[in-house]
Amino acid sequence: MTHKIAILGASGYTGAELVRLIASHPNMEIKALTASRKAGQSMAQVFPFLRHLDLPELVTIEEVDFSEIDLCFCALPHATSQAVIRELPKDLKIVDLSADFRLRDPAEYTKWYGGVHDALELQAEAVYGLTEFYRDDIRGARLVAGTGCNAATGQYALRPLIADRVIALDDIIINLITGVSGAGRSLKENLLHAELSEGAHGYAVGGTHRHLGEFDQEFSAIAGEPVRVQFTPHLIPANRGILGTVYVKGSPEAVYKSLAQAYENEPFMIMLPFGETPSTRHVRGSNFCHVGVTGDRIEGRAIVMVALDNLTKGSSGQALQNANLMLGEDETAGLMMAPVFP
Amino acid sequence: MTHKIAILGASGYTGAELVRLIASHPNMEIKALTASRKAGQSMAQVFPFLRHLDLPELVTIEEVDFSEIDLCFCALPHATSQAVIRELPKDLKIVDLSADFRLRDPAEYTKWYGGVHDALELQAEAVYGLTEFYRDDIRGARLVAGTGCNAATGQYALRPLIADRVIALDDIIINLITGVSGAGRSLKENLLHAELSEGAHGYAVGGTHRHLGEFDQEFSAIAGEPVRVQFTPHLIPANRGILGTVYVKGSPEAVYKSLAQAYENEPFMIMLPFGETPSTRHVRGSNFCHVGVTGDRIEGRAIVMVALDNLTKGSSGQALQNANLMLGEDETAGLMMAPVFP
Amino acid sequence: MTHKIAILGASGYTGAELVRLIASHPNMEIKALTASRKAGQSMAQVFPFLRHLDLPELVTIEEVDFSEIDLCFCALPHATSQAVIRELPKDLKIVDLSADFRLRDPAEYTKWYGGVHDALELQAEAVYGLTEFYRDDIRGARLVAGTGCNAATGQYALRPLIADRVIALDDIIINLITGVSGAGRSLKENLLHAELSEGAHGYAVGGTHRHLGEFDQEFSAIAGEPVRVQFTPHLIPANRGILGTVYVKGSPEAVYKSLAQAYENEPFMIMLPFGETPSTRHVRGSNFCHVGVTGDRIEGRAIVMVALDNLTKGSSGQALQNANLMLGEDETAGLMMAPVFP
Amino acid sequence: MTHKIAILGASGYTGAELVRLIASHPNMEIKALTASRKAGQSMAQVFPFLRHLDLPELVTIEEVDFSEIDLCFCALPHATSQAVIRELPKDLKIVDLSADFRLRDPAEYTKWYGGVHDALELQAEAVYGLTEFYRDDIRGARLVAGTGCNAATGQYALRPLIADRVIALDDIIINLITGVSGAGRSLKENLLHAELSEGAHGYAVGGTHRHLGEFDQEFSAIAGEPVRVQFTPHLIPANRGILGTVYVKGSPEAVYKSLAQAYENEPFMIMLPFGETPSTRHVRGSNFCHVGVTGDRIEGRAIVMVALDNLTKGSSGQALQNANLMLGEDETAGLMMAPVFP
Repeated sequence: MTHKIAILGASGYTGAELVRLIASHPNMEIKALTASRKAGQSMAQVFPFLRHLDLPELVTIEEVDFSEIDLCFCALPHATSQAVIRELPKDLKIVDLSADFRLRDPAEYTKWYGGVHDALELQAEAVYGLTEFYRDDIRGARLVAGTGCNAATGQYALRPLIADRVIALDDIIINLITGVSGAGRSLKENLLHAELSEGAHGYAVGGTHRHLGEFDQEFSAIAGEPVRVQFTPHLIPANRGILGTVYVKGSPEAVYKSLAQAYENEPFMIMLPFGETPSTRHVRGSNFCHVGVTGDRIEGRAIVMVALDNLTKGSSGQALQNANLMLGEDETAGLMMAPVFP
Repeated sequence: MTHKIAILGASGYTGAELVRLIASHPNMEIKALTASRKAGQSMAQVFPFLRHLDLPELVTIEEVDFSEIDLCFCALPHATSQAVIRELPKDLKIVDLSADFRLRDPAEYTKWYGGVHDALELQAEAVYGLTEFYRDDIRGARLVAGTGCNAATGQYALRPLIADRVIALDDIIINLITGVSGAGRSLKENLLHAELSEGAHGYAVGGTHRHLGEFDQEFSAIAGEPVRVQFTPHLIPANRGILGTVYVKGSPEAVYKSLAQAYENEPFMIMLPFGETPSTRHVRGSNFCHVGVTGDRIEGRAIVMVALDNLTKGSSGQALQNANLMLGEDETAGLMMAPVFP
Repeated sequence: MTHKIAILGASGYTGAELVRLIASHPNMEIKALTASRKAGQSMAQVFPFLRHLDLPELVTIEEVDFSEIDLCFCALPHATSQAVIRELPKDLKIVDLSADFRLRDPAEYTKWYGGVHDALELQAEAVYGLTEFYRDDIRGARLVAGTGCNAATGQYALRPLIADRVIALDDIIINLITGVSGAGRSLKENLLHAELSEGAHGYAVGGTHRHLGEFDQEFSAIAGEPVRVQFTPHLIPANRGILGTVYVKGSPEAVYKSLAQAYENEPFMIMLPFGETPSTRHVRGSNFCHVGVTGDRIEGRAIVMVALDNLTKGSSGQALQNANLMLGEDETAGLMMAPVFP
Repeated sequence: MTHKIAILGASGYTGAELVRLIASHPNMEIKALTASRKAGQSMAQVFPFLRHLDLPELVTIEEVDFSEIDLCFCALPHATSQAVIRELPKDLKIVDLSADFRLRDPAEYTKWYGGVHDALELQAEAVYGLTEFYRDDIRGARLVAGTGCNAATGQYALRPLIADRVIALDDIIINLITGVSGAGRSLKENLLHAELSEGAHGYAVGGTHRHLGEFDQEFSAIAGEPVRVQFTPHLIPANRGILGTVYVKGSPEAVYKSLAQAYENEPFMIMLPFGETPSTRHVRGSNFCHVGVTGDRIEGRAIVMVALDNLTKGSSGQALQNANLMLGEDETAGLMMAPVFP
């Protein structure tokens, strides 16, 4: 059976990545693609790399006949997303890639994203989309909230460790290096090739990055007490990829064991041998996530490193993984392609 | 039916690219991987991006039991390749990615590659592997000689034009920009990131690049008279991709028509609308080839631009396309993945 | 004696490059910096790499007291530039970096840039700023029109050859590879790091690039007859650098001799030994220009390759070289810094 | 007065960077350049970006007449350096860029670099070359040991904080992102453009990087008690630049004040306003070092970020700064060039 798919916000990178992935999916067909400002254009115009595909033209959301859609991906900006989803049919399966339904507490939403959440009834229904940890809920969900790409990276390093109580909870640092596609197709000076290439800088330093809302929510829920981590992202000249370097206090062996057990049967989570560390280049374009653990020369300290592709495992691949579950497909359908190297 | 595959020379980029592609092939199984200096290592050690796959360990060629192999890819250096293939079973299907069996005239081989060709009986048997133009021969071949990646690019621009006599034969310039993976995994100062990034240079300027041997052979055969082109490759900081900018004298409309007809039913050859030009970024990691034609302000001159991924359409993807034909598989099996962008 | 300098349009790359160069000039002092939208900001805010310098705040052009300025660099967009310069004091020395005063024929200006030229009396006065060929005129000029960066590159390859009549005039191809800073600080999708990195594409293919106006004017004037060249620029992931690969018909030895003679005593023009070719990486950040000549395997054809830094020798360095002449300074003052490699 | 300079090991990046800098120095002249394997070649062959300079040919160390040299830079590998320097005239001023004379305790040298130190009498004489903190000693020194580039970065962030006791000493994390030129011109697969570009990875994770020896020595000396930090370097696709992100426990305001006071009168140390963070792109090719401090949302924690160019401020620029002091020149001579951006 072929599932009919709509992608709202197909002119951005996560929308295009969804098209790329679904094009190789055995049981999905793209029936509608929307883009507000680029409606009327073909995907070949907006993304010439998809030129070989036979795709529907970009239309406005209003033009979509949702009665023929089985599942809808929303790759819209936050705030826009909730306004759009509120108007969609109430029985339509939806995977949202925005931040709008990630935070269960409306006050937290306002704190990190500004504005008042306007679709609280949907929020109540939404399941947090970190597949490996919410798999059963996602299977039965109608609305799944894709996680932030940085938020996913940090959680892959830390959730099992907090759950297993093998690290101190008051002294966790998530240092992160990210490629530029996570910033989207937005036109900003510091995203120009001339300004981004050949260097590195930190941003949202000092506990101000929005994905901290997800860390706070999830880690506190696991711990059963408030957990606050430090989080510093850095931007480098790479299109795809996030490398999380997470500093924790605990026995490196216990840390390794906790993660290895958690990911033992996960199709996309790859534990490296103890002492080896990952590279974003080795997961590029794929849905795989590499996890490495090393000890430090200072006893009782460990470093967990996680590498994933922010557009795939960090957002659109994760979204498809969730959609597979929601539609009763094999979770890995369309997602087993190897990384592209070099 | 699952075909059993061996890859000789699996520690180089074209070998690894073959593994990447075959991993998604519905009817192929990798039974043997060889690497002389790295024998005994796992592919995960040599190419950690393949870590998620269950692959045979790297062995020496001598250790391979070829009786259980249906088809063998040779991704070895030229000269080595002929020496190895000469010793392989005479009924084994082989796709060679080296230069050893591309040139039908042994004198030409010596001219461009030095040394004497030592397997002339195999040369007589070999079919030139530019799939779109040798498809029928490849289907029945035992030994197929993969083309040079630059040679493929230039031929996609020019073969139909020469065959259709729509351009002057004595004034053809193939200007080419190539990414660095075409140089292989060789350790040279000018391939270091610090020396290659942030700039461009020409190499083998002035009619000295070895792929000229293929241009001479093929273009002259099509024309029925000696054809000599100018060819200048340039190296830029990109891992994958070749952009050919080919200057010809002829009617731009006739040039466009000739190419459009030639590629009308080709699954991987994509003609852009007249006046549009391709980008290597739009074919990265895929087996697609984009072809564009523009006229010049000077009447009677046209510019043909061709973009392909040197590791995929330019070598390993082409090799798999040919292997599909040789094994009676669908020509596109395992090769329809979309490019990776951004 | 210290010359007092104003830079109009200091928030763009050529403006910032002027500041970088003048900061090391022994006899220049920056008295005024303007930027329309960013007036009121400090240069440290707009270009943090200049943070160590003690610079005047950005102001509007109206706020500048030109009576205290000895020489003014205009790094404004074309059309804006002529409107601004028309209002400046008539005895103020000006080096304009825009396209507004490069083309002597107003019809040509309209053809390539659109709109009507509105300052024809200034055009009549302006000297074309390719220093090596207009040195004497520049020395006495009040208004110098900086050349296009691509136009400079092509002319360095071809002017002596046309003057010396060593090449055919009806069959010249300027193939050019350029870094991205030439496109300026403009916010366009295709200049984003995610879209520009890792690939190459041609643009303004087919004789439509504006710098052709300069080629037509200059080459025809030298030849004493209309000369029309082919010109195809390509954009690659590098911040700085232009590599011109120029295909000509003529004796390679005569071509080499003509260029070697022309540049024999030029402080910034470096001839490579015959048969060697340049790299943009070897002139990065400097005012030097490397020129190489090779023959082709086809007799009577030569390839001239020219590498320069578009922001330095191609615009702001050239501008300073001209300003030095206009102010009676040593032509090389502030410009002898070595390239930055790697 | 012009000082006569020799550079031993001129075929590596730090050697070439010394030549670049000295070429603009008002009072230095390069009299000898050595390179063991490349002796007999010209610098133009080894580093074509220096082609415009009139430089002595590369020779072996044995061929140098040290009697005519005022100061010698040693840019040789560690272990080689001590063997060479031992044989040089005992009154020759030397700035060593290797690791050989950085560690005062021979046991520490053996621990981090292996092998036994063979020139302990020279070690006793050597002054540690972090100019801002050893200025007076350097002025009178005969042998100065240039610091590690990572070691310099971490110390710029931490020395004043440890001296002023404004941070906890047992919980310091130096997270570092570095460009690739720090690895030198060595031929390794992971330094190839194809393997390094488009991603990030950590290396020497877990307290195994050799520059920890310098951190241990210097921080413990300042504190008067053993201090052990965590240090994780990451490699990214940039040629130049180190970005240190240093996590400390202490009042952010006190941290800022301590650093601002320490660097108040330093010509190359630039404090950013509180809350702003630096980028390596803004110091590229220069001797400047940008320092930023932010608080975290968790009280009592601060993040210090330091950006410098590893080849300039991190090694060859530092070396020249020290040489200036040793020769009685202005400390900033030849070093005030602005960074190159973009």
